Amino acid sequence: MPRAVVLLSGGLDSATTLAVAKGQGFDVYALSVDYGQRHRVELDRAAVVAKALGAAEHRTVRLDLRAVGGSALTADVAVPKDRSADQMGHGIPATYVPARNTILLGLALGYAEVVGAFDLFIGANVLDYSGYPDCRPEFLSAFEKLANLATKAGVEGGRFRVHAPLLKMTKAEIIREGVRLGVDYGQTLSCYDPDPAGRACGHCDSCQLRRGGFAEAGVPDPTEYPTGPGAYAPGYMRPPPPGAKTS
Amino acid sequence: MPRAVVLLSGGLDSATTLAVAKGQGFDVYALSVDYGQRHRVELDRAAVVAKALGAAEHRTVRLDLRAVGGSALTADVAVPKDRSADQMGHGIPATYVPARNTILLGLALGYAEVVGAFDLFIGANVLDYSGYPDCRPEFLSAFEKLANLATKAGVEGGRFRVHAPLLKMTKAEIIREGVRLGVDYGQTLSCYDPDPAGRACGHCDSCQLRRGGFAEAGVPDPTEYPTGPGAYAPGYMRPPPPGAKTS
Repeated sequence: MPRAVVLLSGGLDSATTLAVAKGQGFDVYALSVDYGQRHRVELDRAAVVAKALGAAEHRTVRLDLRAVGGSALTADVAVPKDRSADQMGHGIPATYVPARNTILLGLALGYAEVVGAFDLFIGANVLDYSGYPDCRPEFLSAFEKLANLATKAGVEGGRFRVHAPLLKMTKAEIIREGVRLGVDYGQTLSCYDPDPAGRACGHCDSCQLRRGGFAEAGVPDPTEYPTGPGAYAPGYMRPPPPGAKTS
Repeated sequence: MPRAVVLLSGGLDSATTLAVAKGQGFDVYALSVDYGQRHRVELDRAAVVAKALGAAEHRTVRLDLRAVGGSALTADVAVPKDRSADQMGHGIPATYVPARNTILLGLALGYAEVVGAFDLFIGANVLDYSGYPDCRPEFLSAFEKLANLATKAGVEGGRFRVHAPLLKMTKAEIIREGVRLGVDYGQTLSCYDPDPAGRACGHCDSCQLRRGGFAEAGVPDPTEYPTGPGAYAPGYMRPPPPGAKTS
């Protein structure tokens, strides 16, 4: 089986991406990056997901991006909460991490050279996500060109490919595909600001998109959210359709 | 003054690159990466160099590339010693770090966004260096294109530039330029395999190129090498011309 490197954060999108790579017949080498993110509990989930979905190997690279700063995900800046769909759809939010996907794909490329893989998978998405420039197709295409110039394997005639199978899927489509491929979303965590016990906040952009996705897909949401008054945000992006389970 | 980010390893080339950026009128933000290299003592030299050359700021990012492996600089693989000029000039050596400059420039790009810089300086060199694919002009050009697609600052209309002022200079030319700009090469360390006291081995490719450069430039070499029998390699690249100091 050809080998592929899959960037695995432990969230919904990257878990689905790993399942897609497996489904396409790749022997999967999963790479997680501990970049000092607030939501480090994701990394524990990544290990569980990698094992459950049959990755050949799972490595975690430590990279302290807090030394560079500049993002609500790594610095002491508030994570936006309870934003409306309209607010989420405009501009680049505080959770943007400068040059994140350039750095993550760079690490994936190095790992790929080491294990002899030429296929890099990333869970980038242009529809649901909030205007991150490094989730766009033109960025991914430019990285692919770069990869072939940057490496010993590229110089020696190998052709690297960057796969972003979720790029144009809605969150609901991603969830349906993941369910079909056997992803257990109860193992994943998408929240930008989980509580100390690792439970999703239910209010950040990522939680809202995830909740809306399960509702729209008509799939029971296995995520454990806080309960009680105020637990669900007024700006909740897509109200569940009548009859959909949101437990 | 416009700001620039300079990748600073603590070696001869990056110190000169910092001096060139200052000489071109940039306010310099120096970035070092502790990537688990054997020659970590470089990082102490980087701090000294940054201060001596008047950098506005110097940050060090920790990134443990040993988790990825694949290089004599990060893994338990022998650093090649005493290779002839002919051996050095062919192929990509064991000291190649997979995707290193992609990762380093990615980190520099993130730091640049944080401090509002659009100019990235890297000490890449095509002549003296040993066939690293990510030191080639076509790689640097591809990274520049990527940077403008990857970032919030690029999307908002900024134009990133990648500067490699040493790209086509010989080691001797680099040393002459650095001396002119006031670099104290006694502060720098180029060795891939220094001893525990931080002294250069004198035998690895990098030491040989450095020694040859000082000899060719006719500049006294301030590097402290081991002394005694076998201290100088038989494959020493460019023998010093008669009369040149090599102390």
